[in-house]
Amino acid sequence: MNTRTETDSMGAIAVPSHAYWGAQTQRSLLYFAIGNDKMPVELIRAFGILKKAAAIVNQSLGKLSPETAMLLIQAADEVISGTLNDHFPLSVWQTGSGTQTNMNANEVISNRAIELSGGTMGSKDPIHPNDHVNLSQSSNDTFPTAMHIASVEAIHHRLIPMVKKLRDALHQKSIAFDTIIKLGRTHLMDAVPLTLGQEFSGYVAQLEQALDRIEASLAGLYELAIGGTAVGTGLNTHPEFAERTSAEIAALTGLPFVSAPNKFAALAAHDGIVATSGALKTLACALMKIANDLRWMGSGPRCGLGELVLPANEPGSSIMPGKVNPTQCEAMTMVCVQVLGNDSAIAVAGTQGNFELNVFKPVLIHNLLHSVRILSDACSSFTDHMVVGIEPNRDQIQHFLENSLMLVTALNPHIGYDRAAQVAKKAHQEKTTLKSACLALGFLNADEFDAIVRPETMLRPSAEPLKNLS
Amino acid sequence: MNTRTETDSMGAIAVPSHAYWGAQTQRSLLYFAIGNDKMPVELIRAFGILKKAAAIVNQSLGKLSPETAMLLIQAADEVISGTLNDHFPLSVWQTGSGTQTNMNANEVISNRAIELSGGTMGSKDPIHPNDHVNLSQSSNDTFPTAMHIASVEAIHHRLIPMVKKLRDALHQKSIAFDTIIKLGRTHLMDAVPLTLGQEFSGYVAQLEQALDRIEASLAGLYELAIGGTAVGTGLNTHPEFAERTSAEIAALTGLPFVSAPNKFAALAAHDGIVATSGALKTLACALMKIANDLRWMGSGPRCGLGELVLPANEPGSSIMPGKVNPTQCEAMTMVCVQVLGNDSAIAVAGTQGNFELNVFKPVLIHNLLHSVRILSDACSSFTDHMVVGIEPNRDQIQHFLENSLMLVTALNPHIGYDRAAQVAKKAHQEKTTLKSACLALGFLNADEFDAIVRPETMLRPSAEPLKNLS
Amino acid sequence: MNTRTETDSMGAIAVPSHAYWGAQTQRSLLYFAIGNDKMPVELIRAFGILKKAAAIVNQSLGKLSPETAMLLIQAADEVISGTLNDHFPLSVWQTGSGTQTNMNANEVISNRAIELSGGTMGSKDPIHPNDHVNLSQSSNDTFPTAMHIASVEAIHHRLIPMVKKLRDALHQKSIAFDTIIKLGRTHLMDAVPLTLGQEFSGYVAQLEQALDRIEASLAGLYELAIGGTAVGTGLNTHPEFAERTSAEIAALTGLPFVSAPNKFAALAAHDGIVATSGALKTLACALMKIANDLRWMGSGPRCGLGELVLPANEPGSSIMPGKVNPTQCEAMTMVCVQVLGNDSAIAVAGTQGNFELNVFKPVLIHNLLHSVRILSDACSSFTDHMVVGIEPNRDQIQHFLENSLMLVTALNPHIGYDRAAQVAKKAHQEKTTLKSACLALGFLNADEFDAIVRPETMLRPSAEPLKNLS
Amino acid sequence: MNTRTETDSMGAIAVPSHAYWGAQTQRSLLYFAIGNDKMPVELIRAFGILKKAAAIVNQSLGKLSPETAMLLIQAADEVISGTLNDHFPLSVWQTGSGTQTNMNANEVISNRAIELSGGTMGSKDPIHPNDHVNLSQSSNDTFPTAMHIASVEAIHHRLIPMVKKLRDALHQKSIAFDTIIKLGRTHLMDAVPLTLGQEFSGYVAQLEQALDRIEASLAGLYELAIGGTAVGTGLNTHPEFAERTSAEIAALTGLPFVSAPNKFAALAAHDGIVATSGALKTLACALMKIANDLRWMGSGPRCGLGELVLPANEPGSSIMPGKVNPTQCEAMTMVCVQVLGNDSAIAVAGTQGNFELNVFKPVLIHNLLHSVRILSDACSSFTDHMVVGIEPNRDQIQHFLENSLMLVTALNPHIGYDRAAQVAKKAHQEKTTLKSACLALGFLNADEFDAIVRPETMLRPSAEPLKNLS
Repeated sequence: MNTRTETDSMGAIAVPSHAYWGAQTQRSLLYFAIGNDKMPVELIRAFGILKKAAAIVNQSLGKLSPETAMLLIQAADEVISGTLNDHFPLSVWQTGSGTQTNMNANEVISNRAIELSGGTMGSKDPIHPNDHVNLSQSSNDTFPTAMHIASVEAIHHRLIPMVKKLRDALHQKSIAFDTIIKLGRTHLMDAVPLTLGQEFSGYVAQLEQALDRIEASLAGLYELAIGGTAVGTGLNTHPEFAERTSAEIAALTGLPFVSAPNKFAALAAHDGIVATSGALKTLACALMKIANDLRWMGSGPRCGLGELVLPANEPGSSIMPGKVNPTQCEAMTMVCVQVLGNDSAIAVAGTQGNFELNVFKPVLIHNLLHSVRILSDACSSFTDHMVVGIEPNRDQIQHFLENSLMLVTALNPHIGYDRAAQVAKKAHQEKTTLKSACLALGFLNADEFDAIVRPETMLRPSAEPLKNLS
Repeated sequence: MNTRTETDSMGAIAVPSHAYWGAQTQRSLLYFAIGNDKMPVELIRAFGILKKAAAIVNQSLGKLSPETAMLLIQAADEVISGTLNDHFPLSVWQTGSGTQTNMNANEVISNRAIELSGGTMGSKDPIHPNDHVNLSQSSNDTFPTAMHIASVEAIHHRLIPMVKKLRDALHQKSIAFDTIIKLGRTHLMDAVPLTLGQEFSGYVAQLEQALDRIEASLAGLYELAIGGTAVGTGLNTHPEFAERTSAEIAALTGLPFVSAPNKFAALAAHDGIVATSGALKTLACALMKIANDLRWMGSGPRCGLGELVLPANEPGSSIMPGKVNPTQCEAMTMVCVQVLGNDSAIAVAGTQGNFELNVFKPVLIHNLLHSVRILSDACSSFTDHMVVGIEPNRDQIQHFLENSLMLVTALNPHIGYDRAAQVAKKAHQEKTTLKSACLALGFLNADEFDAIVRPETMLRPSAEPLKNLS
Repeated sequence: MNTRTETDSMGAIAVPSHAYWGAQTQRSLLYFAIGNDKMPVELIRAFGILKKAAAIVNQSLGKLSPETAMLLIQAADEVISGTLNDHFPLSVWQTGSGTQTNMNANEVISNRAIELSGGTMGSKDPIHPNDHVNLSQSSNDTFPTAMHIASVEAIHHRLIPMVKKLRDALHQKSIAFDTIIKLGRTHLMDAVPLTLGQEFSGYVAQLEQALDRIEASLAGLYELAIGGTAVGTGLNTHPEFAERTSAEIAALTGLPFVSAPNKFAALAAHDGIVATSGALKTLACALMKIANDLRWMGSGPRCGLGELVLPANEPGSSIMPGKVNPTQCEAMTMVCVQVLGNDSAIAVAGTQGNFELNVFKPVLIHNLLHSVRILSDACSSFTDHMVVGIEPNRDQIQHFLENSLMLVTALNPHIGYDRAAQVAKKAHQEKTTLKSACLALGFLNADEFDAIVRPETMLRPSAEPLKNLS
Repeated sequence: MNTRTETDSMGAIAVPSHAYWGAQTQRSLLYFAIGNDKMPVELIRAFGILKKAAAIVNQSLGKLSPETAMLLIQAADEVISGTLNDHFPLSVWQTGSGTQTNMNANEVISNRAIELSGGTMGSKDPIHPNDHVNLSQSSNDTFPTAMHIASVEAIHHRLIPMVKKLRDALHQKSIAFDTIIKLGRTHLMDAVPLTLGQEFSGYVAQLEQALDRIEASLAGLYELAIGGTAVGTGLNTHPEFAERTSAEIAALTGLPFVSAPNKFAALAAHDGIVATSGALKTLACALMKIANDLRWMGSGPRCGLGELVLPANEPGSSIMPGKVNPTQCEAMTMVCVQVLGNDSAIAVAGTQGNFELNVFKPVLIHNLLHSVRILSDACSSFTDHMVVGIEPNRDQIQHFLENSLMLVTALNPHIGYDRAAQVAKKAHQEKTTLKSACLALGFLNADEFDAIVRPETMLRPSAEPLKNLS
């Protein structure tokens, strides 16, 4: 492999000629050959945005010449576009501040800018990775800034739209199923009826609340560490750098980023990431409940609950011909379990700050973006390949409704709980209907029973006065 | 033991004569002799509030006579006061809907009201546990309602004030320490300076944000399931029952409870509990960071960092005389670890709803209230017995500040990163000062060095123009 | 309240006259008023055993007079018996080494021994809490020793017998159900048949393996820290103290405790506790699977799977008369979820040792013993009130078996997967039987079909040669 | 893109011409576009081993012709070698049984074997993916079999050697540092001395035990599900298939695999995976403790503990010149945190089996292999780039040792705990030495003090008789 020589404060090192990265990235490749997990591309893009914003502001503050700034911006735009992603080869399992990835960004932008200017890569002239690209910055404020930018972009542009898409699809089903009365189940046992539309409305409500929580959690992520530099004091920055750069990032992304009011907390803690992960975990709880309900209601086809017919997308078994499985539900529930695991990792990492820095930054952002990515895609897949195709099995739903003993609950206000219980038990033991049991016990006559026990009147509160109780 | 006979739909059972509870509570004692964890007293009080509110509303809707309602209210008030706590003996590890604890409340209120009326306990006359105390209710809506009332009361009355107390104490220290310049540390390594007050301001900021998140999470808990009855439809309730009872609970507690807009989600999911636990976990992350910082800065007394002197509350060792340990920090960090564990349990329980009910309610509320309780008390103890007594060890702080090599960072804007690094390395290897290394390398003269490397100018951004770079 | 004066190296403090504890316990009550969690009684008993063993060994080594030793042993025996439990009032949330509970034991034994000798409590004469009761010991080796003794006793005497009881009950059912052929379910969907006994044999196998893992994990807990004193070196102990005391503990408990070969690890880490918690968590996974299967198979009674009839122990609903719920399964699954949460807390605590000590000892033992306690009791309750009473619903099982389309799998070796799939799909779409579909497609004649598709031949491997494939 | 037509029981679908995969893999690509996580290559290799073993056994049982078997074996060998890895494009987030990856293997082997035989890809002739490649198998037994093969190979060939390498390097340091007496620290506070070698011996002991636990956990993974087919009964297999195929796998891998004695548990539960993850988590706890100790002891260089000099591999800061950070420790601790998170996901997935199948298989194996991979690499990196280069800072170690007040503990057996405490307190308050305080208090004379307080005699137990106590 052809190489060129790059240098840093440790000395010289050979770097592949084709690579834009420099000495520190190369050292990191040598010293951190751990696993297959690369720094997320969302984070690389965020570094591009940040470095561009810093260049703009440094120029406006008179710290960079227009020529230098223009070169930096041009190179940073390429990072943003993703065309230089192959030049960000570093592992998640590196230094806990992400310094090496900040330097990776500095080196790539430096060398690409040098190339654009017609200079020699590795010369640091006319663009120095530290003195120009990293000007007024430290890894300790850039990396958390990039974490926030990447998280907010991913949540805003991928997750929220996909959760809304799923919510809307469920809402459509809720409306479509509004008149289908079915048996309710509590403790997995037969209970009083509700409509299938009501059942789905619960899912919609869960997702609505999940969206509210996720959006609320973004408040903490809009606050950017930039301007804190090494320990939060802002050493080596202009007094306006933090605010101006945050505003520039807001302008570049169209998202309401602001300068974090306390930079010490912004470097040393990642409570905002922990909190957002908590909101994602809560979404995962909701999605797991929904996916489980759907696959249970779709279980069968002949020996399960069978109230729903789920789309048959693929053969389900390599040995059992004709078998179709609720695979979208399974992918979703596995994703939910992973999000719970990611949240555990994030929480532990979030406890481990020391003094002026939390050095678990890469593992934090790796897990958060992983959760966002798989939740977004799973919501989309689940909507398209599962929810929109759900059909009710009306025969089965009706069959269950007619057979349930729990319609007896409607008798409570009329004959009291204890006598209603006698009716249910008698019908259960003798395998008869509620009506025949009730009549046999002499609590009501047939007309009274029929007037009271009507599923369609059991779907909502009722102002009808009580008869027998005071 | 003297007993009396109580009955339920399963038949008769002997109950201790002194006990207000009835048949279903007694059965639960028999069938659920699991562990030592009792249903939390905060939840019992919440059931008292709920039953009182329901009685008031049922009367106002004409479903209960004034006499019946008055008896119910009187008995419920005793539950609220805590004087009947011994009559709530049930285990957390019971039915997952908490039905037996709802029935425990129904039975105790029934029997106590019967007693107040001069009747015979166990007769269900004139107050029936199901038909009167539980009127318009189901375990499936009362238990989650009580979960929310108990959680909000505990967070509002215990946790938030204690976190504020800690925040205020840290803020006082932040102000008091505002002029103490100390070495910063990143990666545990010497870094550039900041003030001790700035360091503490980070803690204050973390707690401020934690308070915001906890308060925001209460929105989900203000929404009450009451009125949903068995499956969320509101069967056997008056159309105004849900709203009126929620309003009554708000009036009784002085807290802004409202009727949950979707009762299906309110019974079948507990995303609000999961989300609040996430907020508590985020607080725990912040507290763990703070407690760790303080004990590390207080480490020594002679062979640690020794920058802080922590209060010496008790002998630290049974074998090493004179040893004093950061025990309040240790209690706090153990509490934080427990809160993380509790949050894990809550999340798993939160995924496991099926159809119209999540039957992991007791384990959810057990863990949430546990977290609230130990976080509240730990914040209070930590404040009183640790934070208010912290003193800086000024000699040690000054000694470190003067010795650190990282003041070299102030040279970056003047001589560039690479030459500054040479200075630091030379001083480190030769065990000299930065100044002598810088002079020996000829980068600056003594006056220039002294003008630049002044810790007191390194504590904030500076508009001073750059000299050597463009 | 009447008090007496006790002293420690911090000075004098008033202690309730009735209490055997001394100054350091009293200080801990003042400084650690956090939560309701007391140090587990199992741990207190373990301290009694340890202090007794140490006294015996110290006498045998000539470090204590026979009279002193006898007093210590007599008082320690009372601690072991549990009669002094009220004198161990300290919180889990104290110093992370458990020093205060070690001192609590030292103080109680000292004062009780003084009392037995006719002396004055608080005088430390003739029995000094540090110099005699704690002789050759440190909190740093006694607390982890007591952790191991308590854990092993609880697992050995409570958990393992209860898991075996459950395993045996399931094994009995497995045998009793051996000839009941039922439909299998994979992905919740109809699959090929097996016997109900085979299904239960899987549960038995899971519990067998869980028992093996738990017993294997005890190896790490048999190793005792005692003899390491303050940092693991054994300072202030006789060279034979560690071995002899471990042997004495083994003799007193009848359990194979030994001296830990490396005392530094034994004080500074608790990998043995973490590993045992991992084994408990694995048991919890098995139990959750079993409990879920049973309640799903018992779901209904009319609108669920209904293959099993579970014992009806109590009324299931406060609003739905006659409802019976799988409450033992719910208690069990909640316990399992708690054990997962406890395991998370234990793992985090297990990562946090520093240098010569892990100061998360109380939270570790609190969670481990909690898991043991609730798992033990839940296994017992689940066996007695659920498993032994399970009955198959033979009609429902037979109904499902006859209707399933997945018997088609038996055709694979005869007509190939693709044609078998055609048969299943045709029968499903046309709501007919497999046989009529197969005949209509002309793949087999009626005799061939009947010879092949027999559930009773589908329950095990078969050496019957293939017909049509090579 | 050029395509060919492939078919399955759902019909025809276009597949890229270059791809060996078939219809079901292609459908999965369409329906499961979720995240970036591909099925691990270790698992693909394991499928190759399994399919080869099955072919050998099916031939030996007369179920496959020698020609067919040879083609299957040849294609499977290519899967094993990794050259066909690009033909396994499926996501982890697919069907929870991994059916689509089993079919992916069946399809690739089928098409590659067809190609080798000169046939037409997609024709299923002469090698059918189900009837030949999957003969006597189901996804439900092959996927868990491949999970176990992949896990055992990765643990045996990667993890265990790397942990041993780290253990050995630490052991070398323990020997090399055996005579360096240093201050011990408990609660982060100065404690009694030990040698640096003793401290490192604790790390060695932790890793020894971790290795024992990991190896013990493999017992559960050696048991293979193969032969259970769809639900565990072994339907459509020869009675000797399970044993013979397991033996063949053992022969091919050189690892002691056996047929799982209970196939129902082997398909429906993954307690073996959960238990192994628990062992990995325990290793992570040990590694986190070790890495934390090393970076704290290496903290400074001037304002930390500074007892160790860690290798300086790369520049540590983009803003602070000359800064070197404990980056290998940070990578390691982040890996440990990830392993804890992975373990949480695995545990939840492990609870969620239903009836005859646990459909969280892909998320289980994804997380387990992830943990193995990053732990293996991190141990290797940590050894090579950190542990072997650690040097003691003897001056700093000696300085601390001489200054510590905790040498006072050596006085306990001579003057008692209470007077020893007076000495320590006096020295602390007056900032003098222990000796001068002890002499001033008149407890000992100088010769006595010097004879007792010698760090080199405090490193182990001592048989020296007690002087003043009875």
